[in-house]
Amino acid sequence: MRILVVNANTSEIVTEKVGAQARASAAPGTEIVAVTGRFGGRVIGSRAEHAIGEHSTIALVSEHAPGCDAVVIAVSYDTGLRGARELLPVPVVGMTEAGLLTACMLGGRIGVITFGRRVLPLYHELAASYGLAARIAGWRVLESAAAYQRGAHDELDRELVASALDLVERDGAETIVLTGAVMAGVPMRLQKDVPVPLIDCMACAVRQAELLVHLGLPKPRTGSYAAPSGRELINVDAAVAARFAAAG
Amino acid sequence: MRILVVNANTSEIVTEKVGAQARASAAPGTEIVAVTGRFGGRVIGSRAEHAIGEHSTIALVSEHAPGCDAVVIAVSYDTGLRGARELLPVPVVGMTEAGLLTACMLGGRIGVITFGRRVLPLYHELAASYGLAARIAGWRVLESAAAYQRGAHDELDRELVASALDLVERDGAETIVLTGAVMAGVPMRLQKDVPVPLIDCMACAVRQAELLVHLGLPKPRTGSYAAPSGRELINVDAAVAARFAAAG
Amino acid sequence: MRILVVNANTSEIVTEKVGAQARASAAPGTEIVAVTGRFGGRVIGSRAEHAIGEHSTIALVSEHAPGCDAVVIAVSYDTGLRGARELLPVPVVGMTEAGLLTACMLGGRIGVITFGRRVLPLYHELAASYGLAARIAGWRVLESAAAYQRGAHDELDRELVASALDLVERDGAETIVLTGAVMAGVPMRLQKDVPVPLIDCMACAVRQAELLVHLGLPKPRTGSYAAPSGRELINVDAAVAARFAAAG
Amino acid sequence: MRILVVNANTSEIVTEKVGAQARASAAPGTEIVAVTGRFGGRVIGSRAEHAIGEHSTIALVSEHAPGCDAVVIAVSYDTGLRGARELLPVPVVGMTEAGLLTACMLGGRIGVITFGRRVLPLYHELAASYGLAARIAGWRVLESAAAYQRGAHDELDRELVASALDLVERDGAETIVLTGAVMAGVPMRLQKDVPVPLIDCMACAVRQAELLVHLGLPKPRTGSYAAPSGRELINVDAAVAARFAAAG
Amino acid sequence: MRILVVNANTSEIVTEKVGAQARASAAPGTEIVAVTGRFGGRVIGSRAEHAIGEHSTIALVSEHAPGCDAVVIAVSYDTGLRGARELLPVPVVGMTEAGLLTACMLGGRIGVITFGRRVLPLYHELAASYGLAARIAGWRVLESAAAYQRGAHDELDRELVASALDLVERDGAETIVLTGAVMAGVPMRLQKDVPVPLIDCMACAVRQAELLVHLGLPKPRTGSYAAPSGRELINVDAAVAARFAAAG
Amino acid sequence: MRILVVNANTSEIVTEKVGAQARASAAPGTEIVAVTGRFGGRVIGSRAEHAIGEHSTIALVSEHAPGCDAVVIAVSYDTGLRGARELLPVPVVGMTEAGLLTACMLGGRIGVITFGRRVLPLYHELAASYGLAARIAGWRVLESAAAYQRGAHDELDRELVASALDLVERDGAETIVLTGAVMAGVPMRLQKDVPVPLIDCMACAVRQAELLVHLGLPKPRTGSYAAPSGRELINVDAAVAARFAAAG
Repeated sequence: MRILVVNANTSEIVTEKVGAQARASAAPGTEIVAVTGRFGGRVIGSRAEHAIGEHSTIALVSEHAPGCDAVVIAVSYDTGLRGARELLPVPVVGMTEAGLLTACMLGGRIGVITFGRRVLPLYHELAASYGLAARIAGWRVLESAAAYQRGAHDELDRELVASALDLVERDGAETIVLTGAVMAGVPMRLQKDVPVPLIDCMACAVRQAELLVHLGLPKPRTGSYAAPSGRELINVDAAVAARFAAAG
Repeated sequence: MRILVVNANTSEIVTEKVGAQARASAAPGTEIVAVTGRFGGRVIGSRAEHAIGEHSTIALVSEHAPGCDAVVIAVSYDTGLRGARELLPVPVVGMTEAGLLTACMLGGRIGVITFGRRVLPLYHELAASYGLAARIAGWRVLESAAAYQRGAHDELDRELVASALDLVERDGAETIVLTGAVMAGVPMRLQKDVPVPLIDCMACAVRQAELLVHLGLPKPRTGSYAAPSGRELINVDAAVAARFAAAG
Repeated sequence: MRILVVNANTSEIVTEKVGAQARASAAPGTEIVAVTGRFGGRVIGSRAEHAIGEHSTIALVSEHAPGCDAVVIAVSYDTGLRGARELLPVPVVGMTEAGLLTACMLGGRIGVITFGRRVLPLYHELAASYGLAARIAGWRVLESAAAYQRGAHDELDRELVASALDLVERDGAETIVLTGAVMAGVPMRLQKDVPVPLIDCMACAVRQAELLVHLGLPKPRTGSYAAPSGRELINVDAAVAARFAAAG
Repeated sequence: MRILVVNANTSEIVTEKVGAQARASAAPGTEIVAVTGRFGGRVIGSRAEHAIGEHSTIALVSEHAPGCDAVVIAVSYDTGLRGARELLPVPVVGMTEAGLLTACMLGGRIGVITFGRRVLPLYHELAASYGLAARIAGWRVLESAAAYQRGAHDELDRELVASALDLVERDGAETIVLTGAVMAGVPMRLQKDVPVPLIDCMACAVRQAELLVHLGLPKPRTGSYAAPSGRELINVDAAVAARFAAAG
Repeated sequence: MRILVVNANTSEIVTEKVGAQARASAAPGTEIVAVTGRFGGRVIGSRAEHAIGEHSTIALVSEHAPGCDAVVIAVSYDTGLRGARELLPVPVVGMTEAGLLTACMLGGRIGVITFGRRVLPLYHELAASYGLAARIAGWRVLESAAAYQRGAHDELDRELVASALDLVERDGAETIVLTGAVMAGVPMRLQKDVPVPLIDCMACAVRQAELLVHLGLPKPRTGSYAAPSGRELINVDAAVAARFAAAG
Repeated sequence: MRILVVNANTSEIVTEKVGAQARASAAPGTEIVAVTGRFGGRVIGSRAEHAIGEHSTIALVSEHAPGCDAVVIAVSYDTGLRGARELLPVPVVGMTEAGLLTACMLGGRIGVITFGRRVLPLYHELAASYGLAARIAGWRVLESAAAYQRGAHDELDRELVASALDLVERDGAETIVLTGAVMAGVPMRLQKDVPVPLIDCMACAVRQAELLVHLGLPKPRTGSYAAPSGRELINVDAAVAARFAAAG
C-alpha cells in the first residue's frame, strides 16, 4: 500500500518529521510518500496562509495522488481535507480529524493541546466543524517554537506534560490529543509521564488511512464528496486542470 | 492478534453471523473468538433486555478477554461497551460506535438504517451519547425479521437499498451506516446498488480494534476508564469477582 | 400508596439511608418499601459495576414491584431507570433525574455536587442524556467517603456548603442539586447555610413518583417504553422471566 | 394549601376552564383561586399581547398571591413566569413548563400539539428557553377556535387524536403534551384513543406546585430569582409598587 | 430618516445618554426621537421590572412610532423587542441584539461585559434566545453604578478595560460587546486601551436600523411577526388599543 | 467610500451581476470596484474549486484592497472570508454571512434557498460555522442553471417563489435568504409574491460593509483576526507576498 502524506507547508523540515513518523506508524508493507507545498507559507500560522494552503493541497494531490492508495493531510488544521476528499478516488484523512475520532474510541472527553494562542480559534472551529465540540474537555496552548528545530526539547517536553496533566486534573480529560504536524512522534516519548492515552495524530491518520483502504468502500457517486467532472479551470497547474476535467 | 467478539444476545445464530463477518473483515493473522451471552434475551430488543445485557457483557469479557488483544461489542446498541472498556486492559470497540466514527472520516452527514421502530429511540440516544447527533442526516427503520433466518433475503435487500437511496435523496446522507449485528456482511453485497459508501459496522469494529492494538496506547491510570481495583462484588461469576478484585 | 425504592447497591446501609429519607419525604399515607441489590458492587463506583447494577435493578423490580404503585431508583446514576420504566406498568423515577427536573422548575441554571472525580463523567453523561446539559451551571466533586459511615460529618458538611457557595459565586448556579443516594436528607440540614435552594434528590424522586401516580397516566402501548411481551429470556431469575413473558 | 391560578388573558371563559381543571387536578384540601387579567388581550395570540400579558401577570400576582402557597401561570406561553417567580416568596410554575418537565419523567421524546400556526414559533422559543429543545420529537398545529366555545367539540377531538397519532407514528413521540390553557381537561377525555401518555399541562402545573410546596425549599437569597427589594416603580398598581418596595 | 429610540426605563438620564449616543452614531440626516417609559422601574434591574417593561415598550411604540422609519430598543435586555417588532410596520432593532450580530461580522467569538451579577442570567438567556450561545467566548460582570451618574468615571473605565483584557487573554474573545444602555458612547473612549474591537451596542443598533430602512424589506404578511389585526384589548392606552385594532 | 467586491469565480458574468447589484444596493457616494478571479473554477461548484478559490480571494484582495474602505466576498460560500478578514486592515463581509445575520434582525427562523443539491452540504456547514444552525428553519434546493444566462427567467422565478412559499408554509420560515451570487437583485423582483422578507445577500453585504466602515472599529491587534506580519511566503503573487511581509 502506498500512502501520500501531504504537507501544504513549504518547509521541508516538517515534511521530514511527518514523513518519518508516518513511516514509523505505518503497517509493514505500507510505503509513505511525503510531499511539500510548493507555494504559500513556511509553516501555516494564520487564516490567510491556511487559505492559500487549501489550494496548495489541491495542487499537491492532483500531482502526487495518482498511484497512491490513500492520502493523509499532514497540516494540523487539516488544510484542504474536504476538497481533496472530494476530488480523489481514494480515501483522504486529516491528521487532526483522525486524532480526534480515534480518541473518541477510547471513551470520555478529550483534552487538546495546540501551539500558538493566535491559531487556537482555528482548532475550536475545526473540532466544531467535525461535530465534535461536545467531546472536547478542554484546550491548552503552548507558545514554544522549539519543535521546529532539531535536537532535544526538554523544556517543551515539560510544558507538554504539564499541560496534559492539567487537562486531566482540572478539565477531566480522559485522553489527550496533541495537535501539530511537527509533534508527530512526540506522544510516544512522553506517554510514560501522562496517565491517560496521549494521541499522536499522524500515527492515527496513517493507520486510519490504511483501515479505509482495507474496508474497500467505493467513491461516492453523488453528494458533495462525489468527484467533480468535466469542469474547466483556468490558470491552474496542468495536473489540477486534468484532474478536474477527468474526475468522475 | 486475537480479538474477542462479544455477543450478549443468547442466540448462537447471531454469534455465527458476526463471527463470520468478523473473520472476513479482519486482517490476515487476526484470530476471532466469538462468544455468546449465557443469560438474558435471545435477541436484545427492549430497554430491559439491554439492561440485562450490560451485565452479560461484563460477565463474558471477564471470562474470555484474558489472552485477547482487543474486544468488539457485537450488539448494535453497543451493550456493555463503557463498562467493558473501563474494566479491561485492552481496547474495547462498539460496533455501532465504530461504524459511525469510521463514517465520519468519509465526510458529510450520515444516514442510519436500523431495525424495529420500537428500538429506534435507543439508537438516537446512542448517537447522541457519542456526541455525534449533528453528524446524522436521517434515520430509516425496517421491520423485517428475515435477517435472523438463514437463506436469501431478496425482499429485505430491496428494502435496505430503497431506504439507503431515500436517505441520500431526501436527507442528503453522504454515507449510510447499516446497524444491526445480523447485518454484518450485508453492506458488501448491496454496495453496488447504493451510490454512497454503505458501512458495515462489524467490519469497522474489527479493523478499528486492530488499529487500536497497533497504536499501543496505554490503559488510563486515572479517570472513568481507569481499571477499578480491589472492589468486592457479591453473587457474581467467579471470573467477574476476580476481575474486579485484581484489576488495576 | 406504596412506593418501591430500589437500591441496586449491595449495601444495606445505603438502603437504610434512602429508605429513611424516602419515608421522611413522602406524603402521609405513602408506604415505602426499600430493597437492596442481591448481586454486584457494594457501592456502585465504576462503569462496570453500573453495568451489573442495570441487571440488578431489573431483577429487583421484577420481584418487588408487583403491588407497588410506583418505583424510585435510589442509585444516583439512575441505574436501570430506562429498563425498569419500560418493563413496569407503574411510573419509575430516577433520583438524579427527579432532582434535576425539579430544580428546573425553580428557574435558572443548576449547580451539581457529586462524589468522586472518577465518576464525574458518568454524571455529565447522565445530565446530557436527559437533554439537560444547557441547564447545568457547573459541577463540583467531593472525595469524602464519610457519608457511608454513621455519625456526624462536620467536615463533609463544611465541604458541601463551600462547594455550594462556590457554585453560586463563580458559576452563577441558582439552585444546587446534591447527588448521591447517601446524601438523602443532608440538604435539609445544610439548607440554612446555602443562599439558593439545595435539592434533595430522594425527596424529589418520592414526591415526583407520587405525583405521577396521582396523574394516572396510562402505560404507553407503543414505542420504546411500551412493555415488552412474550419474550423468552434464559438463565435469569424466575421473576424476571415471568415479567418478560407476561408483560404487555 | 391555596394555589393561585393566574390567567393573564382578559377572558373569563378561560379562567373558568383552567380553574375547573385545576380544581379537578388538585389534591384533596388544595384550594384553587383563579384570577383573570384586568388589561390586555382577550386571548393572548400575538407577541405584543404576550408582552402586555407579562405586566398583567405581575399585577395579578402582586395583588392576589399574598395568602397563597404557590402560583400557577395559566397561559400556555407561561406569560410572566420568570418575573413572578422572582418577585414572589412562594413557588411559581408555568403550565407549559410543568407539562414538558413532567413529560420528561415518562421517558423518551415529546410530541407537542399547539393551536395557531402564527404562534408556533413562540412555543419553539419557549421549549428552547427551558433547555428542552432536544427532548422535543415534533410539533403539530391545529387552527380550531372551537375550544373557546362551550359545548361538545367532536371535530376538534378528532383532529387532536389524529395529530397525536401522527406525532407517535411519524416523529416517534413517546408522550404528547397538549398545550393551551383552554385544553385543560381535554387529555383525560381523549387519552383512551392515544397509545402514549397525553399530558394535561394544567394538571401537571397544579400537582407540581403542590409538590414544590411540600418540598419546602427556601426562596433564593441571591441570583436572578432572589426577590428584588427597595425598588421604586412609578405609575403602577399600588399592590405592584408595594411588592417591589417590600420584597426581600 | 427618523428613528425612535425607546427607553422603557423610567429614568430620563438613561434616555439622555442613549439619545445623545444615538445622535452621535447616526448617519447625517437621521433624526433621533428618544422617549422614556411612563410606568415601571427606574432602571430595569430585575425579571419582574423587565416584565413590566415589556408592556411599557408596547405602550411607547404604539404612541410614538407613527411617523418614524425604524425603532431601536434602548434597554440592554432588548425589553419588548419581539412584541414591538411584530406590532409595527417598520424595522425594530434591539441594542444588545444589534451589538452581538454586528460583532459576529468581525469574526471569532465574542466577550460580553455586563453590569450586575444579579442580571447576568438574563443576558445568558438573551444570547441563547438569539441562537448565538456558541458565539460567546465568555462573560464578565461589573457591579459599578457609577455609570448612572454624570461626570468622569475613571475607576469604572479601569474596570472595563481590565475586564476586556481578561476576556481576550483568558477566554480568547476576539471582540468585546459592552452591554448596558448607559454605556452608550463609552466604547469609543476606551477603544484605544483594548486590542480588539469594543462594540457600542447603541451605535450598532442605530446603524442597523438605518440599514434595514435602506433595504426596504416589507412587513411580513404571515408568521409570528406579521402584524396582529382586529384584536380587542381592554384597559390599555388608547394608542395601544388603536394599534391592535388597526394593524394588519 | 470605496468597496471592493471580490468574485473568486473566474466568470465575468457573475462579476457583472454582483457588481451591478452592489451598485444598486449601495448608499449614494459609495463606489463599487468588482474584480474577478484570475485562476480556478468558472463558477465554484465543488469543494475542491472552493479550496482553490480560498487562495484566489487572498490574491485578489492583496492586489485590489489597497485604497478600498471595505471588502465584500461575492461568492455565496463566503470563499476566503476568514483569511481576507484576518489579512486586511479594513472590514471584510461575506455575502451569505451578511444575508443570514441581517435576516436574524428581522426575527424568527430563516428559510434558505440554494442552488445545486451537490453543494447543499457546504451551505449547511457554512451556517453551522457561523453558529447559526439553530436559526435555520429549513432549506430548499433548486437545480436551475438559468441564472447564469442573460434574459428573462420566468421558470426559475416560479420555482423560487414556490420554494419560498413552501419554506414559509411547511417549515415556518419567517424570512427567506436567497443565496447565490448570481441571484443578486432577484429578491427585489420577486418580493411581491412572497409574504415574508426575501433577503438579497449582496445588498445586505454592501450595506453591512458600509455600516462597519461607519462604525470605525479598529483592526484587532491580537487574536486570530490580527494581521499576520513579517511572514515569508514563497511562489505567490508579489502583492500577496508583500501583504504578508508588511501587514501588522
